[in-house]
Amino acid sequence: MEIVREIANIRKIVANARKQGKTIGFVPTMGFLHEGHITLMREAKSVCDIVIASIFVNPLQFGAGEDYEEYPRDLDHDAALAEQAGVHSIFAPSVLEMYPHGCSSFVEVIGITDCLCGASRPGHFRGVTTVVMKLFNIVQPDQAFFGQKDAQQAIVIKRMVEDLNLNISVVVVPIVREHDGLAMSSRNVFLSTTERKAAPILFQALQEAQKLLQAGERNAEYLRAVICKHIGTETLADIDYVAINDLTSLKETRIITGPVLIALAVRFGITRLIDNLIWEG
Amino acid sequence: MEIVREIANIRKIVANARKQGKTIGFVPTMGFLHEGHITLMREAKSVCDIVIASIFVNPLQFGAGEDYEEYPRDLDHDAALAEQAGVHSIFAPSVLEMYPHGCSSFVEVIGITDCLCGASRPGHFRGVTTVVMKLFNIVQPDQAFFGQKDAQQAIVIKRMVEDLNLNISVVVVPIVREHDGLAMSSRNVFLSTTERKAAPILFQALQEAQKLLQAGERNAEYLRAVICKHIGTETLADIDYVAINDLTSLKETRIITGPVLIALAVRFGITRLIDNLIWEG
Repeated sequence: MEIVREIANIRKIVANARKQGKTIGFVPTMGFLHEGHITLMREAKSVCDIVIASIFVNPLQFGAGEDYEEYPRDLDHDAALAEQAGVHSIFAPSVLEMYPHGCSSFVEVIGITDCLCGASRPGHFRGVTTVVMKLFNIVQPDQAFFGQKDAQQAIVIKRMVEDLNLNISVVVVPIVREHDGLAMSSRNVFLSTTERKAAPILFQALQEAQKLLQAGERNAEYLRAVICKHIGTETLADIDYVAINDLTSLKETRIITGPVLIALAVRFGITRLIDNLIWEG
Repeated sequence: MEIVREIANIRKIVANARKQGKTIGFVPTMGFLHEGHITLMREAKSVCDIVIASIFVNPLQFGAGEDYEEYPRDLDHDAALAEQAGVHSIFAPSVLEMYPHGCSSFVEVIGITDCLCGASRPGHFRGVTTVVMKLFNIVQPDQAFFGQKDAQQAIVIKRMVEDLNLNISVVVVPIVREHDGLAMSSRNVFLSTTERKAAPILFQALQEAQKLLQAGERNAEYLRAVICKHIGTETLADIDYVAINDLTSLKETRIITGPVLIALAVRFGITRLIDNLIWEG
């Protein structure tokens, strides 16, 4: 497996694969890989001839005061894991390679980016869609793989691909969890021992809502209150948002009649964690 | 030559050409073709195996009160001209085919879109970059051809292609003029007989500035004043802007030391015409 730093070089690898008639699967990541990312890579490998993974901590999607500088990085470890997962090439460009003249062109999805994480992190999704568009144009994959953990991101990317007629199939892969239910995240490494012990309460709260849904509860405000109350029992947890939104429009739901996304963001100390559940109805 | 209405069908034509190892040149237009467009098509034909031209009057790039409804259309005549120019396929989608769910994803280039036509037509370039990105993703050409008449558009598209890593070479083709110097434009058809007679004053004013530049004049404010004064002698002409800007940054120039774009927009009755001149220095 090769680690490629330059756009021109990854383009050559892609062109070469294309000449041989091979299909290309792409897994864009910010690195510090965990089992969630590896699952995406294995999934890509199972359906595409060649898997390219990118590792790029994209400054454009971090706001002022967010954890861009502190975001964990470990390329050597990442490379070992990606190779095991069958990745053909890692594309790990520098910030200068990706933004040689800063950035004056942006891709923006409106409406579905104002709520949930978009409300807490203004400009975040513009940074995500812009870098993903750049990476898509560089790698030109047949299929691209995203994790369900970043539920809103997956919905935004799908919308971008559809609206802008990208010839790429977007595959969303289920959340991978630790044994106690905590959703895998590169940011989990920031949790203190006590915070780490407390963090599975997010998944427990989502499960409680799911049980109520299975029992027939359809009042979203009530379910939201149950989730907030459950998380509120943990003094280390500081809720950013808990939301129950229509799965397509991402508009807030009052009475659940179709598929919804139950999503939450909660801070434990300096660490902001997200988790979610899809109820197909 | 085929007229293709559906995205899926033009994709098939492109995929088929690719399989045969053919290169694709793309000429995006809003139709009502004139010699300027035909020159783009011939230029494309001279360097690419296959030429695809799009004809789509893009509502997204027209502001409220602009001439979207009135924009001239004549697909039969366009098809005959394009066929003569060696175009392989015309892609002429409906608005519904291009924007089946409205539009919630946009491509925006900032900075260089605030001035010149961007100042007079807010949102215009966002509409242009968004539809061009969509068309690029549908046609996936090797080279795309734009006219120098829309100088700012060409600069904005080039910036978008570079910033977002599109694997497309953008070719800008010189302005084609009527015998009296009026830049060819689909909108010239709106001019009354007297307006049409008056309109070549735009090119004459640009030529006067060029002569002064050749004679050594470098004061942009003075040159601008000369152009405005020249156009001002024509009572039918109502100046929207006359500007002398750095060719790359599109920032206003005071003393000309490098390449500049001398651009103007002038109304004759209901018709807004643009013209420009590049001084390479």
